[in-house]
Amino acid sequence: MKVAFIGMGTMGAAMALNLLKAGHAVTVHNRSREREEPVAAAGAKRAASPREAAQGAEVVVTCVSDTPDVEAVILGDGGVIHGAPAGAVVIDMSTVSPSATRRIGAALATKGIRMLDAPVSGGSEGAQKGTLSIMVGGEAADVEKAMPVLSAMGKNITHVGPAGAGQLTKAINQIIISGTYLSVAEGLALGIKAGLDMPKVVKAMAGGAADSWVLSYRSGNVIKNEYPLGFRVRLHRKDLGIALEAAKEMGVFLPCSALVAQIENGLVAQGYGDEDVSAMARVIRKSSGLD
Amino acid sequence: MKVAFIGMGTMGAAMALNLLKAGHAVTVHNRSREREEPVAAAGAKRAASPREAAQGAEVVVTCVSDTPDVEAVILGDGGVIHGAPAGAVVIDMSTVSPSATRRIGAALATKGIRMLDAPVSGGSEGAQKGTLSIMVGGEAADVEKAMPVLSAMGKNITHVGPAGAGQLTKAINQIIISGTYLSVAEGLALGIKAGLDMPKVVKAMAGGAADSWVLSYRSGNVIKNEYPLGFRVRLHRKDLGIALEAAKEMGVFLPCSALVAQIENGLVAQGYGDEDVSAMARVIRKSSGLD
Amino acid sequence: MKVAFIGMGTMGAAMALNLLKAGHAVTVHNRSREREEPVAAAGAKRAASPREAAQGAEVVVTCVSDTPDVEAVILGDGGVIHGAPAGAVVIDMSTVSPSATRRIGAALATKGIRMLDAPVSGGSEGAQKGTLSIMVGGEAADVEKAMPVLSAMGKNITHVGPAGAGQLTKAINQIIISGTYLSVAEGLALGIKAGLDMPKVVKAMAGGAADSWVLSYRSGNVIKNEYPLGFRVRLHRKDLGIALEAAKEMGVFLPCSALVAQIENGLVAQGYGDEDVSAMARVIRKSSGLD
Amino acid sequence: MKVAFIGMGTMGAAMALNLLKAGHAVTVHNRSREREEPVAAAGAKRAASPREAAQGAEVVVTCVSDTPDVEAVILGDGGVIHGAPAGAVVIDMSTVSPSATRRIGAALATKGIRMLDAPVSGGSEGAQKGTLSIMVGGEAADVEKAMPVLSAMGKNITHVGPAGAGQLTKAINQIIISGTYLSVAEGLALGIKAGLDMPKVVKAMAGGAADSWVLSYRSGNVIKNEYPLGFRVRLHRKDLGIALEAAKEMGVFLPCSALVAQIENGLVAQGYGDEDVSAMARVIRKSSGLD
Repeated sequence: MKVAFIGMGTMGAAMALNLLKAGHAVTVHNRSREREEPVAAAGAKRAASPREAAQGAEVVVTCVSDTPDVEAVILGDGGVIHGAPAGAVVIDMSTVSPSATRRIGAALATKGIRMLDAPVSGGSEGAQKGTLSIMVGGEAADVEKAMPVLSAMGKNITHVGPAGAGQLTKAINQIIISGTYLSVAEGLALGIKAGLDMPKVVKAMAGGAADSWVLSYRSGNVIKNEYPLGFRVRLHRKDLGIALEAAKEMGVFLPCSALVAQIENGLVAQGYGDEDVSAMARVIRKSSGLD
Repeated sequence: MKVAFIGMGTMGAAMALNLLKAGHAVTVHNRSREREEPVAAAGAKRAASPREAAQGAEVVVTCVSDTPDVEAVILGDGGVIHGAPAGAVVIDMSTVSPSATRRIGAALATKGIRMLDAPVSGGSEGAQKGTLSIMVGGEAADVEKAMPVLSAMGKNITHVGPAGAGQLTKAINQIIISGTYLSVAEGLALGIKAGLDMPKVVKAMAGGAADSWVLSYRSGNVIKNEYPLGFRVRLHRKDLGIALEAAKEMGVFLPCSALVAQIENGLVAQGYGDEDVSAMARVIRKSSGLD
Repeated sequence: MKVAFIGMGTMGAAMALNLLKAGHAVTVHNRSREREEPVAAAGAKRAASPREAAQGAEVVVTCVSDTPDVEAVILGDGGVIHGAPAGAVVIDMSTVSPSATRRIGAALATKGIRMLDAPVSGGSEGAQKGTLSIMVGGEAADVEKAMPVLSAMGKNITHVGPAGAGQLTKAINQIIISGTYLSVAEGLALGIKAGLDMPKVVKAMAGGAADSWVLSYRSGNVIKNEYPLGFRVRLHRKDLGIALEAAKEMGVFLPCSALVAQIENGLVAQGYGDEDVSAMARVIRKSSGLD
Repeated sequence: MKVAFIGMGTMGAAMALNLLKAGHAVTVHNRSREREEPVAAAGAKRAASPREAAQGAEVVVTCVSDTPDVEAVILGDGGVIHGAPAGAVVIDMSTVSPSATRRIGAALATKGIRMLDAPVSGGSEGAQKGTLSIMVGGEAADVEKAMPVLSAMGKNITHVGPAGAGQLTKAINQIIISGTYLSVAEGLALGIKAGLDMPKVVKAMAGGAADSWVLSYRSGNVIKNEYPLGFRVRLHRKDLGIALEAAKEMGVFLPCSALVAQIENGLVAQGYGDEDVSAMARVIRKSSGLD
C-alpha cells in the first residue's frame, strides 16, 4: 500500500523499516530531517512536511511523543489534514489522551479522512522485530483496510472498540504495570533486607499467583539495583499522567496509580528519569535503609 | 515414611490424602475430631492429640490457621514437642510470622527435633492435585530428608534459605499479589467505566508488560463483579498482616501493601471477607460510581 | 481608586460590594450580564466587556473560575489587556496555575500593565465580611499601590514573594487542608465506629497536637454525616489538581495529596461533588461499614 | 490522697512531682530502682515492687511504655493486683491497646479494684507544667474519685466514655496528627522547592482552613530541616501501630494513617527514629530531591 509515516524516533524508524520489508511504498517525514536518512537509505521516499508525505497516501501512520505533537503533525500548518486524500486512514500510534484522539478524529472526519488510535506496547525490541502489541480503536472497516500495515508492525493486534478505545486500553496497560512494578519492588525489598537468596525466591513464586511479566523479566533489576532500559520512567510517567487525567474526567478512583505517579515524580526529581521504570524500586530500597 | 499430619482443614485433608496415595503411613489429628474421618476412611490412623500422632513419626506435618495455633499444636500441652522422637523433622506448612517460626524451631531444637517452615501457594485446587508451590526454609539435610513427603504434596518445591526463609518468601508472595490485584482492579475499572469490550482489552494486554497470573485468571471476576473462591480476603488479610508486621520489625517501606491492607479492612467491615481476594475491585468499582 | 472588577460570582460580587463600601469607584463586568445587577444597584457602573471595564482603571481585579477563564478575560478578544492603561495593576484573585499566572503577567508586561497574583482563602463568608486571607505574589511597589483595594477585601494580606508566589501559596494551602481533612475523617471514623461520645472526644483533643481549623470547625460534619457548604469538593479538587500539576512540573513528592485527589474523584463520581470538602469522610465512613 | 506511682520515666517522674506538690502522699516504684531517687528526694516513699507500692493506696497510677509493660506491672508477679486494696482506683496513663485495657480492667475487677484508662497528650513539657490533656475512660464514679489526682497532673481532663474510651481517644489523636504532619510536610516542601519565603507563607495561612497546631509549632522544623524533640518518631510509630491494630479489629479504613506508618518504618530504618515526629518531612524532602 502507499503509506506515509510521520515520526522517525527509535520506535517509528524501526516500524517504518518493517513496512518497507513487507513491500509497502513508504514516504517518511521527521521534524529533524536528518533522522529520515537511515529509512530513506532502506528505500523510503522523503517528504518536507506531514502534508507532503500524506499526499496520495492510502494510510498515514503517526508516531510522535505527546498530544501537542500529534495535534501539530495532523492538524497544524503543513499537517496531514491538508494533504491526505478523502478516504485515507490515519493510524496514530502515539500514546496520547483518549479525549484528544477523539477530537483529532472528529477534525479529520470533516475532510472525509478516517482515523484509528493504535498505541503499542512491546518497546523498541518489539518495534524492531515487528512483534508489537497494537491496541486499536476505531471503525471495523477502517481497521480492516489498515490491517496490511498494522500486521507488518505487530503481532497481537486487537480491535478493542470505537475511537479512543485504543488509547484507553493503553492507559489501562500503564495503570496495571504501575502497581505491578511497585508491589514487586516492595516484596523483593523485604527479601533483600532479610538477606534471602533472591533468585531462589523468585523461582519459588514462578507460575503462582504472584507471577507476572514484571516479576519474570524485571526482578533481576531490583535485586541488582541496576535499571538499564527497558522503558523510561519519564515516558511511563507521561503515559500515567494521561491515564490519571482520563480517570479524573471520568471519575475513576485510582489510589495505587496515583501513588506510583508521585514516586515517579520523585525519581525524576532525583535524576533517575531516564532509567528503566523498574527503578521505582530505588524509592522502596532507599526508604528501607538498603542503599 | 511414617508421617504425622496435624490439621485437617480443607488444605490439610487434601494434602494428607496425597501422602496416603504416595504410600506413606499417615497418622492424623484435628482439634475437631470428626474432621479426621474422611482421611481415616482413606487409610490414615487417628490420634487423640498432636503428641500422640507424633510418637514414632519420622516427619510431622502441621497445617493450621495462625501463629497461636501453630504454637499450641507444637509447643502446647499435648503438643508435638512432647511426642516426636529426636531426629524427627517437623514441617510447618501454615502461614505464620517468620520470627515466630524461628522461635518455635529453637524450642524444638532443645529436644533434638528438626524444623522446616514450608508455607504453600496454589490454594485448595493445588492441595487436591498435589501441585502446590512449597517455599521451604531450614537446613539442607532436613529438606532432603523431608523431600519424599514434600514431593507428594507439591510441584514447585524450592529451598529458599535457612529457618524463617520459607515464611519470608510467603510474605513476599502475599505482598506482590496485593499490588497486582489492586492495579488490575484499577485498570479494569477505567475500561469498564468507559464501556469498553473488556475481554478484548484483556486479550490485547496478554503477553505484554501488564500481564500476570492475576490478569489471566482473575480479570473475569472484576469484569463480572463476582468474586467466587479462590482465596479468601480474610486469609490474605491475615497473611498480609504477618508481612506488614515483619516489615515493621525489619524497617521496610511498603506503601502499596499498607494501602491494600486498609482496603481489605474495609472489605471485611462491609461483609465481603469471605469472597475471593479479587473482591478488592469492589472498593475501586464503588468509589468510581460503577456499583 | 478607579477599580474595574471582572467576575460577579458569589465571591466576586461580595468583594466588589466591599470595594464600593470603602469608597472606590467600581466598574463591573460579568459574562452573564444579569449577575452585574445587584452590584450596579449598590453603585457600580457596568461595562460590556473586560476591555471596556478596564479603560481608565488604576486597578483591575479579576475573580473567575479557572486558568482558561483568566486567560480569556485578560488576554482574549475584548480582554483587559486591550483596555487597561499602561501602569495599571491587574490583581488576579482566581486560583490558577502558578506557571499560567507568570505567562499572563509576562503578556501584560509587554503593554506596561502590572500584575499581581492574589488568590484568597476564607470562603464566601470571608468575602462578605471583608475578612479574606489574601496571598499576594508580585513586585513590592505594585502591592503597595494595590493595597487600598486589597485591604477593602481582606484582613490577613501577605506579600509572599514574586510573580506566581501567591498561587504557589494557595497551592500549599490546598495541599495542607487535604491531609488534614482526611486524617480528621479517619480518626473520627474510628471513634464513631467504637460508639464514643464524639463531641467529648473532640473536646479532649482541643488545644493539643491534633488540633486544627478543620477539627474545630468541620468535625461536626463528620460526626453528623452531613456536609453543608462551606467549600465545594469540586472546587477543592480543581485547586488540588493545580497543586499536583505544579508539583509534577517541579518534581515534588505528594503521596497524601495524590490519595486525596483520588478520593475526591470518587466523591464526584458518586454525586457528592457539590458537598463541602469535609464530605471526604463519606469514603472513610462507607469503607468502614458505617453507612 | 494516698497515691502509688509506678513508672519513673521522663513523663512519670514529672507527673509524680506534681502530685507531691499538690500535697498527695506518694509512693513510687520503677524497674530500674535508681530512677526513683529524684522523686524520693522530693518527698516520695520508695517501694520494692508495684505490689508493695499499691498496698494501702487509694489511687495507683501506672505510666510505662507499652502493653506488655502494663500487663507486667499490674497483673504480673509482684503486680499491683496483688497489693491494691479493694476499692482502689488504678489509673493507667500509658498508651496501650484499647482491648488490652479492657482485659486488664476486667482482671482487676475480679478483686474489686477499679480501673481508668487515662492516656495523655502534651509531652514532657506538659508533664512538667501539669498542663497535660488527659483522656479518661471508665466509670463516672471512679473518675470523680480520681479527680484530685488527675487534676494535679493535667488541665484538659475529659471523661470520654466507658473502659477503653481513653485509649481509643488517644488512638484518634495519633491518627489525626499523622496526616496533619504529613500534609504540612507536603505543602511546605512545594514552597521550599519553589524558593518561597517560607515564614511568610506560613503567616499567610495562619488562622485559615490550613491552620493547625502542627503548622503553628512544627513548620519551623520542616523549613530548617532540623527535628529536635518534641515527640519521638519511634513513640508515635508505636502509638500509631496500636491505632492501626484497633482499626483492623474493628474494620475501619485508614489509608492515610497506614501510609504514615510506612513512612515512619522508613525513618526508623534510616536512623531517624529518635528525632521529632515532624521528621516525616525528611521523606518528602528527600524524595523531592531537596536534600
